[in-house]
Amino acid sequence: MVKGKITGLSVKDVRFPTSLGQHGSDAMHTDPDYSAAYVVIETDAEDAIKGYGLTFTLGKGTEIVVCAVKALSHLVVGRNLEDIVANFRDFYRQLTSDGQLRWIGPEKGVVHLATAAVLNAVWDLWAKQEQKPLWKLLVYMTPEQLVSCIDFRYITDVLTEAQALEILQNGKQRQEAREEHMVKHGYPAYTTSCAWLGYSDNQLQKLCADALKEGWTRFKVKVGADLQDDIRRCKLIRDMIGHDNELMLDANQRWDVNEAISWVKELAVFKPLWIEEPTSPDDILGHGTISKALAPLGIGVATGEQCHNRVMFKQFLQARALQYLQIDSCRLGSVNENLSVLLMAKKFNIPVCPHAGGVGLCELVQHLIIFDYISVSGSLEKRMCEYVDHLHEHFKHPVTIRNAAYMPPKDPGYSTEMKEESVLLYQFPSGDIWQQIISENTEI
Amino acid sequence: MVKGKITGLSVKDVRFPTSLGQHGSDAMHTDPDYSAAYVVIETDAEDAIKGYGLTFTLGKGTEIVVCAVKALSHLVVGRNLEDIVANFRDFYRQLTSDGQLRWIGPEKGVVHLATAAVLNAVWDLWAKQEQKPLWKLLVYMTPEQLVSCIDFRYITDVLTEAQALEILQNGKQRQEAREEHMVKHGYPAYTTSCAWLGYSDNQLQKLCADALKEGWTRFKVKVGADLQDDIRRCKLIRDMIGHDNELMLDANQRWDVNEAISWVKELAVFKPLWIEEPTSPDDILGHGTISKALAPLGIGVATGEQCHNRVMFKQFLQARALQYLQIDSCRLGSVNENLSVLLMAKKFNIPVCPHAGGVGLCELVQHLIIFDYISVSGSLEKRMCEYVDHLHEHFKHPVTIRNAAYMPPKDPGYSTEMKEESVLLYQFPSGDIWQQIISENTEI
Repeated sequence: MVKGKITGLSVKDVRFPTSLGQHGSDAMHTDPDYSAAYVVIETDAEDAIKGYGLTFTLGKGTEIVVCAVKALSHLVVGRNLEDIVANFRDFYRQLTSDGQLRWIGPEKGVVHLATAAVLNAVWDLWAKQEQKPLWKLLVYMTPEQLVSCIDFRYITDVLTEAQALEILQNGKQRQEAREEHMVKHGYPAYTTSCAWLGYSDNQLQKLCADALKEGWTRFKVKVGADLQDDIRRCKLIRDMIGHDNELMLDANQRWDVNEAISWVKELAVFKPLWIEEPTSPDDILGHGTISKALAPLGIGVATGEQCHNRVMFKQFLQARALQYLQIDSCRLGSVNENLSVLLMAKKFNIPVCPHAGGVGLCELVQHLIIFDYISVSGSLEKRMCEYVDHLHEHFKHPVTIRNAAYMPPKDPGYSTEMKEESVLLYQFPSGDIWQQIISENTEI
Repeated sequence: MVKGKITGLSVKDVRFPTSLGQHGSDAMHTDPDYSAAYVVIETDAEDAIKGYGLTFTLGKGTEIVVCAVKALSHLVVGRNLEDIVANFRDFYRQLTSDGQLRWIGPEKGVVHLATAAVLNAVWDLWAKQEQKPLWKLLVYMTPEQLVSCIDFRYITDVLTEAQALEILQNGKQRQEAREEHMVKHGYPAYTTSCAWLGYSDNQLQKLCADALKEGWTRFKVKVGADLQDDIRRCKLIRDMIGHDNELMLDANQRWDVNEAISWVKELAVFKPLWIEEPTSPDDILGHGTISKALAPLGIGVATGEQCHNRVMFKQFLQARALQYLQIDSCRLGSVNENLSVLLMAKKFNIPVCPHAGGVGLCELVQHLIIFDYISVSGSLEKRMCEYVDHLHEHFKHPVTIRNAAYMPPKDPGYSTEMKEESVLLYQFPSGDIWQQIISENTEI
């Protein structure tokens, strides 16, 4: 049973100096320091359980998201958790539609990332009080409870509450078998860890060989900065993994629409399954044009990690502008908004292949995609979840990967809690790690 | 000639307690405190000229934009103004595409509002050093100089640099005659001051009668909260202004797509010229559906004040999803990005009718629309600029309205400079006005 009044909300700026090793580098983000605005909420309940939430950032600018979390804090502190979850749709609406704050969004960019961090903490708290991992909390909620968490504003032309209910009611059928399958085999994953853009060919070859040994069968390569480099790197990877394994490409928004089409055609010989983020994340119609042009080559378009809300996803689906939909646990408004996107994807029969990596994204999004399989999509066809093997050691309950699959978490909560010592060490700029970097005057 | 190195950038949180009088209230923003993140840049040039820039906000959240301006500051301070304006496209790209900061945008929400404030200050400084009002600086730049300010990334499928040049070269023809026309007659305006949603019928009638006396012929009414109220208010205004004057409606994003269509059909009897922001500002396809449904009734769709960048405007144009395009001087990336939108609108032959009001928006956007008439569109057909009569007294060079038209500013700069005493008084929360409100414990 949920209980307690929220008595405190704190937020910290936690940054990991990943740019020093070129981890996470791509065609647009050449020097990311994987970071998070990290939220902790406390209640007055006797159990003393805390809720932890985060949103992912790339270093600079985390302080802006922290500032936005503080601006939302007064809407959260003082509220009873029971009231929040009994009317979660209204609570979501309050956070996203404040008459003054919505001007600097609405439901996009900094304020929406902050909303995600706060709501992720609320969901973590709820799941912990229910003593269930989040995916299981969702799986055992009734369809009515689930839709009561969703704000249908602006999407009713594509998904009404009644349609959402119907999808979820159908999803209940034989869900025990699917839960069993997940517990036994896990959710299939692919790896992005082998081929960041800043890695040398040697590094790439070594990592790819290691990954093959570990049982990985699906590999993503960063492209988009230089065509000749891309050709060389794609050939290298395809030669190593062979044609029984899958290859995906990711341009991280590097191209204009026509450039994307002609560039990817040059790489078609390597038989990629998809091209990810070929152009601006806002360009729905552009992605539609690219989808149409690449369809005859058997290459799909994937996008979503910077798709900023359900209204954008709605249109990507309406315009047939993506063939793989990549939800993100920290850019959309937490579980609430992701639920609406999973349901719309189901309606359009588009596979969801979540974005992960960063810091904490794997920990969080595994819950959503496992729920999606068990209670919404009911299918693993053309589906897989991204995996990147960085920074898991900072989490209290890190992901478990077995045979290139995410094994369903067993610990209560949303797997959002970081180790206390990590938060202390990496807090920016006061943590020891940063003090040392600053004192060494390292280029960061 | 431009000169000097930027030696300092400061930013202040300035808020006006407009919510106390329900000024600016609409169906989604019920209690706005018109505010600004206000930027001042200084150089080491002997002339000691400063550049002033702002972005408009609604109260809460201004501190977040201030935080974002500070995060951009290091990209500005230390730069030579001459280098900036000689390669303005690159400078724009640096501000909008920082490898770490872009994650929390890109080019949307808080970080983009901050970019607007900073770049508005740079344009103000440039125009002042050239001793020209901004509109005149633009009118007398060569087409080559103008396109060198535009970042064409993500829009080349609709507007290439060559096409932009051609439009601007054509715009040079007979521009003296149009400049003369502007100086003599000004740019036509409409008023939103009569019918904020929170105003009583009596207040509305009085303001409307006054406006008619002052020569206003175009009136905008806020709608969307309650249909019966809307019908009563529309009837009241239409009866007062008659059928020779124009009536526009503004729903401020209140509806879902189908709801918008049915609601506006109920108001069609009042013959509105347009329905503004019928639904989510992100819903390009939704606006397209609404446009199609309302076209037979002779009602157009207007939107743009929360359209967050050129990529969105590109798609609104491609999808024929708006019939009146409303640029905003403080949401897009300043003059640079607005130039690209004016040119795309010209290409699609869609009239630009800027959003104004708030604090400073009239002062700024008049420059853009006067330039648009003289050098881009060359037409006043179906065109007008919003006007709201609040808060002009805080500006050093407030707008001049004559016969319901914006008279071209004569003072050098972008009309962005506030009076020093206003900034002091209204700074949040330290200014005297706010200290008094706080001490009186007034609900704000």
